[in-house]
Amino acid sequence: MAEFIGKAVVAQGGGPTAVINQTLAGIVLRSKQCRQFSSLYGAIGGVRGIIEENFIDLASVSFGNLIAVANTPGAALKSTRDKPDGEYCRRIFDIFKKHDIRYFFYIGGNDSADTCRIINENANENNYDLRVYHVPKTIDNDLLVNDHTPGYGSAAKYVAQAFSGIDKDNESLGGVYIGVVMGRHAGFLTAASALAKKKEESAPHLVFLPEYSFNTEDFLEKISNIYSVSGRCVIAVSEGITDPSGCPVIASLSDKNKEYDSHGNVQLSGTGALGDMLSDLVKSKLGIKRVRSDTFGYLQRSFAGCVSPTDAKEARECGEMAVVFSSNVERDGSVTIVRTGEYEVEYELAPLAEIAGKTKLVPKEFYDPHRSMPTESFFRYARPLTGEMPICETLKARIIKVK
Amino acid sequence: MAEFIGKAVVAQGGGPTAVINQTLAGIVLRSKQCRQFSSLYGAIGGVRGIIEENFIDLASVSFGNLIAVANTPGAALKSTRDKPDGEYCRRIFDIFKKHDIRYFFYIGGNDSADTCRIINENANENNYDLRVYHVPKTIDNDLLVNDHTPGYGSAAKYVAQAFSGIDKDNESLGGVYIGVVMGRHAGFLTAASALAKKKEESAPHLVFLPEYSFNTEDFLEKISNIYSVSGRCVIAVSEGITDPSGCPVIASLSDKNKEYDSHGNVQLSGTGALGDMLSDLVKSKLGIKRVRSDTFGYLQRSFAGCVSPTDAKEARECGEMAVVFSSNVERDGSVTIVRTGEYEVEYELAPLAEIAGKTKLVPKEFYDPHRSMPTESFFRYARPLTGEMPICETLKARIIKVK
Repeated sequence: MAEFIGKAVVAQGGGPTAVINQTLAGIVLRSKQCRQFSSLYGAIGGVRGIIEENFIDLASVSFGNLIAVANTPGAALKSTRDKPDGEYCRRIFDIFKKHDIRYFFYIGGNDSADTCRIINENANENNYDLRVYHVPKTIDNDLLVNDHTPGYGSAAKYVAQAFSGIDKDNESLGGVYIGVVMGRHAGFLTAASALAKKKEESAPHLVFLPEYSFNTEDFLEKISNIYSVSGRCVIAVSEGITDPSGCPVIASLSDKNKEYDSHGNVQLSGTGALGDMLSDLVKSKLGIKRVRSDTFGYLQRSFAGCVSPTDAKEARECGEMAVVFSSNVERDGSVTIVRTGEYEVEYELAPLAEIAGKTKLVPKEFYDPHRSMPTESFFRYARPLTGEMPICETLKARIIKVK
Repeated sequence: MAEFIGKAVVAQGGGPTAVINQTLAGIVLRSKQCRQFSSLYGAIGGVRGIIEENFIDLASVSFGNLIAVANTPGAALKSTRDKPDGEYCRRIFDIFKKHDIRYFFYIGGNDSADTCRIINENANENNYDLRVYHVPKTIDNDLLVNDHTPGYGSAAKYVAQAFSGIDKDNESLGGVYIGVVMGRHAGFLTAASALAKKKEESAPHLVFLPEYSFNTEDFLEKISNIYSVSGRCVIAVSEGITDPSGCPVIASLSDKNKEYDSHGNVQLSGTGALGDMLSDLVKSKLGIKRVRSDTFGYLQRSFAGCVSPTDAKEARECGEMAVVFSSNVERDGSVTIVRTGEYEVEYELAPLAEIAGKTKLVPKEFYDPHRSMPTESFFRYARPLTGEMPICETLKARIIKVK
């Protein structure tokens, strides 16, 4: 039984994923069992929805609709790119007081965790009894403390399946193919490009992560070596690769393409510029004619119909566990996923400050910069997260000897 | 029983699809029943593989491998972009004579059909008993006589599912999204972007086909009208859109991006240039800040794990029927799909010249240029081809009235 009954608000923040609505469904469904919420509001449009008092009654949602929404990509409560500062958080806190809101669940990444942390401090300073819970979500897989994050498994599955098909497409016609994958600082999703790779000859042949400075000569030399043997080369590149000075390659290669988002970061997604620049580089420096690039863009986080069952289940459970934690003694924190077996997880509550605003990078043992390829350790780590992959097979036949 | 026993060759041409190997499997499997082939060769690398006498023995492939390959995207026999002229076809014919090849099955689009036609003429002129069969394949769905073509249903399913997810992603954060879809002359695949659209407010909101000249003012005005109401707008654009003078927009907007493929056509795929240019246009002319574009590129034709069951079945049957036709009186032709019911198809053999080198465009009744949207007639036509789509649902909840 809950120790404390009060009104609750749920919001979704940052870029949506294929399973972020599973987490929402988990919160709503579990709240019907743990009865500490006098009402359960949804804020439309993340933290901005709170400030604008744009609320819906989540208890009024039918089960059928909720389950269908859980299986739908994108943020059902809508999201925001607003990154609240102290003043913004105070305004949120004022709305909470006005509506007598006592529980806040924010589904998001490390920025959202930071918002939770600040709002929580506000409440503590004002002796206002508010319980704040950050619930993890990010395709980048870059939250500290967590073994992995909801959203990553499905995006990784998409990227792995894409490269598995690209392998066969590229094998059909030859040439160089560059696939640009999301990930500003952390290369987990780009590393996932190799998850369905079967053998040395299969694509991707090279994988470049943002954790390692990108050296143009090394890039070209490695492509040249592979292409000269097989007449083809498939490369996965993170959108966030940086040159040796730490400047994003997308910005260093062309001034024209510098565009900044609302957080003051150079825009990386939603443009094919990096892929096109790297293609031009390969064409001009190596003289290879057939060079193609695709930027996976929003497809990798929103494609309807490519969800990892493990990811969907865990996203649901993260929402459920947030409600469970809030009905116990824990006053605030971030729900985290802890791997406890092969393959099994449990959920714990970590202090908000341990997650807030911090970025987990790909550990050294997951990547071999000399081969530009993820290691076996990474494959062992990531394979359980994506679930089964479609079988892609090469034709095996006797070669006809010609006289 | 076959009227005529001889050696057969199978080859795959042009851009691969998700189901082109189903057709190959259909030919191999059915050949075990119709016993008119003394041997069944596969040419590695399309027509180039024939000239280079690069053959494998398709009878040596195990059933297990064949079925796995049938479900794998990409051309298992590898493909080529070579577009044979008269001299090239004569060289093919010489190889056929050298190996005493009497049956030729070429799985491909209208260019491949044209190659079949020329080789067939060669054989007739030389009184060489050769039976030539074109077996249809193209994600563009642009072959005459056919109701639709193998490969289209799966690519259409990918594009529809992508826009279904993009709808929810864009709804989460607002702004303008432009998705660039394959199709140089025919807009069938771009029209498929609307196949999972549920209602007026769902994405895509605008669809631009290559059959209709692209007017920049009209494009911007329509986006502005939709964006001003809902704060968002999702647009599907064919890579092949042309300006009123008939010049591809990708070439007219920027000289830098003109690149030609081996057929002398401007390169459209494998670059994000068109999407980026249209994004820049919307940003600069309409002053909208959040504008993103994705170019679907090779993902739409090769993604492993997004196959229409109907498409897979029909691709298999086209291969089977090619073998059946070759065991009957028909000496040459192109296998075609005829729609005979709701939903049912049959296969016929059309004269090669009716398909060869010709392009079917989107019929007028399938598209409304005023609304920039496919019509109900198109939806009725295309929906049976893609099979079931994942459910994407919007949250339905009571709005909280704030005092």
